[in-house]
Amino acid sequence: MSSTAGQVIRCKAAVAWEAGKPLVIEEVEVAPPQANEVRLKILFTALCHTDVYFWEAKGQTPLFPRIFGHEAGGIVESVGEGVTHLQPGDHALPVFTGECGECPHCKHEESNMCNLLRINTERGVMLSDNQSRFSINGKPINHFVGTSTFSEYTVVHAGCVAKINPEAPLDKVCILSCGISTGLGATLNVAKPKPGHSVAIFGLGAVGLAAAEGARLSGASRIIGVDLNPSRFEQAKKFGVTEFVNPKDHDKPVQEVIAEMTGGGVDRSVECTGSIQAMISAFECVHDGWGVAVLVGVPNKDDAFKTHPMNVLNERTLKGTFFGNYKPRTDLPGVVEKYMNKELELEKFITHSVPFSDINKAFEYMAQGQSLRCIIRLHE
Amino acid sequence: MSSTAGQVIRCKAAVAWEAGKPLVIEEVEVAPPQANEVRLKILFTALCHTDVYFWEAKGQTPLFPRIFGHEAGGIVESVGEGVTHLQPGDHALPVFTGECGECPHCKHEESNMCNLLRINTERGVMLSDNQSRFSINGKPINHFVGTSTFSEYTVVHAGCVAKINPEAPLDKVCILSCGISTGLGATLNVAKPKPGHSVAIFGLGAVGLAAAEGARLSGASRIIGVDLNPSRFEQAKKFGVTEFVNPKDHDKPVQEVIAEMTGGGVDRSVECTGSIQAMISAFECVHDGWGVAVLVGVPNKDDAFKTHPMNVLNERTLKGTFFGNYKPRTDLPGVVEKYMNKELELEKFITHSVPFSDINKAFEYMAQGQSLRCIIRLHE
Ligand SMILES: NC(=O)c1ccc[n+]([C@@H]2O[C@H](COP(=O)([O-])OP(=O)(O)OC[C@H]3O[C@@H](n4cnc5c(N)ncnc54)[C@H](O)[C@@H]3O)[C@@H](O)[C@H]2O)c1
Ligand SMILES: NC(=O)c1ccc[n+]([C@@H]2O[C@H](COP(=O)([O-])OP(=O)(O)OC[C@H]3O[C@@H](n4cnc5c(N)ncnc54)[C@H](O)[C@@H]3O)[C@@H](O)[C@H]2O)c1
Ligand SMILES: [Zn+2]
Ligand SMILES: [Zn+2]
Ligand SMILES: [Zn+2]
Ligand SMILES: [Zn+2]
Repeated sequence: MSSTAGQVIRCKAAVAWEAGKPLVIEEVEVAPPQANEVRLKILFTALCHTDVYFWEAKGQTPLFPRIFGHEAGGIVESVGEGVTHLQPGDHALPVFTGECGECPHCKHEESNMCNLLRINTERGVMLSDNQSRFSINGKPINHFVGTSTFSEYTVVHAGCVAKINPEAPLDKVCILSCGISTGLGATLNVAKPKPGHSVAIFGLGAVGLAAAEGARLSGASRIIGVDLNPSRFEQAKKFGVTEFVNPKDHDKPVQEVIAEMTGGGVDRSVECTGSIQAMISAFECVHDGWGVAVLVGVPNKDDAFKTHPMNVLNERTLKGTFFGNYKPRTDLPGVVEKYMNKELELEKFITHSVPFSDINKAFEYMAQGQSLRCIIRLHE
Repeated sequence: MSSTAGQVIRCKAAVAWEAGKPLVIEEVEVAPPQANEVRLKILFTALCHTDVYFWEAKGQTPLFPRIFGHEAGGIVESVGEGVTHLQPGDHALPVFTGECGECPHCKHEESNMCNLLRINTERGVMLSDNQSRFSINGKPINHFVGTSTFSEYTVVHAGCVAKINPEAPLDKVCILSCGISTGLGATLNVAKPKPGHSVAIFGLGAVGLAAAEGARLSGASRIIGVDLNPSRFEQAKKFGVTEFVNPKDHDKPVQEVIAEMTGGGVDRSVECTGSIQAMISAFECVHDGWGVAVLVGVPNKDDAFKTHPMNVLNERTLKGTFFGNYKPRTDLPGVVEKYMNKELELEKFITHSVPFSDINKAFEYMAQGQSLRCIIRLHE
């Protein structure tokens, strides 16, 4: 039992007071975990586009003040009533989506879309009592996707916390909480290329490069990277991407360019852009008879996926995935082991690192398109 | 060696002289098979919508005179040079699509879309020499999809002929040459329901009922039949369809009706209508997290399959199939065995039977929506 268990903890957190305004490091109060909750000491967190998207709050109802952050690694400080799979001292990854273990999705071997703990970007409070565990002078601060890892301590539903190997370096494996697992799982769990297959990756951001890493791990012989931004190509070579296509360089649709490069189409494609046009191209560029396309990118509200049904009838498969089909508690420990076994290379995703006091620099690096992942060190 | 080998055979065939006009039984000359071809004595043939569609020739370039027919069973009369897997006396099913054994599709374990022998509805001649093997007084008569089974004898590419168990009754298993295998395979090979699954079947014609038969064989616990024509429902009960939905009876989209009936969606759906609206509903009615939808129906040229990409991202799978993903030569003998083992029930598909001289009655039964399959007996 830590001496802080059951007590309010006062610590530093980076608070977003207003949409699009720099975060401010504040002293916050973090209430003890309630039933089925865990309080985590966050050691390392990374910045993901989703944080930036909700911080900018251009598309959604703004919810401020708020503590963002959802890619992180930490240590369990204390647990609430009824928590059995975690105890103080455990090394853990908090995840924006959870695994209650009881609902039809959790019980189904193929789904990870837990009914109870599925991502909810609109909620700023805890599930059990609709209250925040964060406050400043008694004024509550909103949570973000149940994780709020831009804080030295945070409270998370126990179903959203994966217990991992305590030997795993948290400053590396923290990036497995979101985008990297999403891209990796899209390839390994959903597209499932076989050795020798050709794989097209649409979008060479962190998610797409993680999908490429999955293709490399699967033994794909050709990994074709597609991006509108050619500055992404050089970096992608480190991820085993062997060929590049910029749709802007061609008069014909990119699916036709890829079909010509591959004698009829790739064996697998993974779309990691969020662009509806890329989603359609990713589907139409797979080989008839056996090709499988997987959608990952988050589309706009009004987008429509549109294709001629003959493209389906000619024995192509279209799939989509959420968090790479990983069940957070069941499957993330195994992904960490892949890193420990030196199969999975995480270092190449980490382009920057800053102390907590410089967290706004991480936002700048991302805005400038310089970083894949910037690690923020919370306790130095 | 039969005494007719190498000779022209004079026999009866039902010739379509003009689009939409009754067939005329004529005496035709059937040339001997050339290299890689087989001449079959057709004993039984059935009528399928595709014959009627090309006979009506409303959508396509008309190709007449022509001998239709593609669902049939027969006996090999003689074989051309280079044919090794068949010999005179073999019992066989001719198929509108083939298996060359050499192309990337034939070599791929998942595809049956042979590059060389894939269905070609525009061609009225043999592949090797662009000539017809049928003539009347020296005037060539067009072939249809390489099978032309409305003839006592026909010549077929050997890659389009499946050798089957000689004990199998050809007046039953002949219907495995097209629609029944298409629907059955769509479920067994592509949708692959597990025991206890719920399955929705869109369209309760012969193809849809064969898909339902596949669901029954798979141990599905609920088989939901969807059709705009309620007169299809009574018959469908014989095929294990346990619940019925007529989209016309509901104000909301049928996918919502099915989601309500099943607590979020069916595990599997198979679309056998050719209607684009049904294709979209079939996709959207499967459960998020794990549902699989399979398209079978042949759409119109200008149709567009359209859905919100979130329906895909929520872990639904969309697939299409051609001939139920069966490789004709490799897989049809096994389907025949399923019938011989009394797993698969074929009798219930056969609602009518007529002698060859009454072939036009088969067209009438189909036009009136009375028949599932009408067997035409060629040699009595
Ligand atoms: N499903 C999930 O669980 C999950 C998790 C995290 C991120 N995502 C989504 O994955 C997508 C990628 O995330 P990221 O962080 O790598 O983003 P990113 O912005 O860093 O990378 C996206 C890349 O796609 C490229 N692109 C955009 N439109 C394109 C087009 N039409 N053709 C080719 N390339 C195109 C861009 O140039 C960019 O390089 C986003 O939509 C994100 O929301 C999904
Ligand atoms: N892919 C293949 O290999 C293959 C082979 C044979 C047939 N087919 C196709 O399969 C389809 C079915 O063939 P069939 O012979 O059973 O046809 P059919 O006309 O006997 O049956 C189709 C049924 O679908 C119903 N229907 C039409 N629109 C509907 C809608 N929007 N919602 C619900 N029900 C609807 C009709 O009322 C009818 O009962 C056709 O499109 C045919 O071309 C495909
Ligand atoms: Zn759950
Ligand atoms: Zn993220
Ligand atoms: Zn072939
Ligand atoms: Zn047919």
